Amino acid sequence: MKENNKTQTFTKVECADRLSAVEDAIYVLGGKWKLRIIVALVSGYHRFNEIQRSVKGISPRVLSNELKILELNGLVKRTVDSESFPVLVEYIPTDYAETLKELVSMLGNWGVNHKKRISSEIDL
Amino acid sequence: MKENNKTQTFTKVECADRLSAVEDAIYVLGGKWKLRIIVALVSGYHRFNEIQRSVKGISPRVLSNELKILELNGLVKRTVDSESFPVLVEYIPTDYAETLKELVSMLGNWGVNHKKRISSEIDL
Repeated sequence: MKENNKTQTFTKVECADRLSAVEDAIYVLGGKWKLRIIVALVSGYHRFNEIQRSVKGISPRVLSNELKILELNGLVKRTVDSESFPVLVEYIPTDYAETLKELVSMLGNWGVNHKKRISSEIDL
Repeated sequence: MKENNKTQTFTKVECADRLSAVEDAIYVLGGKWKLRIIVALVSGYHRFNEIQRSVKGISPRVLSNELKILELNGLVKRTVDSESFPVLVEYIPTDYAETLKELVSMLGNWGVNHKKRISSEIDL
C-alpha cells in the first residue's frame, strides 16, 4: 500500500470489523422503505393507515412486512389497546429507534448539501 | 393524526423535504458497494488493484463502474501520473468525501451497538 497523506486511524483488522459494522447497519436500515417508515414513525404517525399515507407508494402488504422486520430489530413496538372500540393498534417507535434520529438527520443534511452541490455543478 | 407524546419538530412540508433529502443520500451512498469502496479509499487504498482486494467479492467491472459513479458525484478523483513508469493511476478521495467520514463512523457505531443488542436478546 502506498504511503498516504490522509490520516489512517484504523489497523486492517479494526478496519474490517468497522466495515462489517457499517454493513450490518446498512442491512438493517437499507432498502427502499425502512428509513422512510422510521421517519414517519418518529414524525408522529403511529397507525397503520397513517403510516401508509405518509410513506408514498408503499403497499399494505410490504408495509406490514417491513413493520414486522423493524419490530424484530427492536425499532418498533406494536401496541394493541383492546379496551377502546374499535380496537386501537398502534406502531410506536421504541426508545431505541430514537438512537437513529441523529443518524437520519445527518443523512438528511448530507443529502441537502449534496443536491445543492450537484445542481450548482450542472448550472456551471 | 393522533396527539403524540414524542416531540414533533418538523411541519409536514419540512418533513417531506427532509425525507427526500434522506432518500437522495441513500441513493448516492446506498447499494451493496459504494460505502465499502469509500471506506477503502479513505483508509488509504488508492490503486485499482488495492481497492479491489480490500473490497472483498467485487468484480473489476463493477468496481470500475462504481468508481465512475462516485467520480460523477464528486467523491473520488482519478489521477494519472504519466511521468512515472508504468503510468500510475490513482483514485483519491476528494475533500468532499471526507464529509462522509463522520456519517460512516456513526453508521459503524450504530451497527456495532445493534449487533450487541440483537445477540444479547438471542442469548436470553
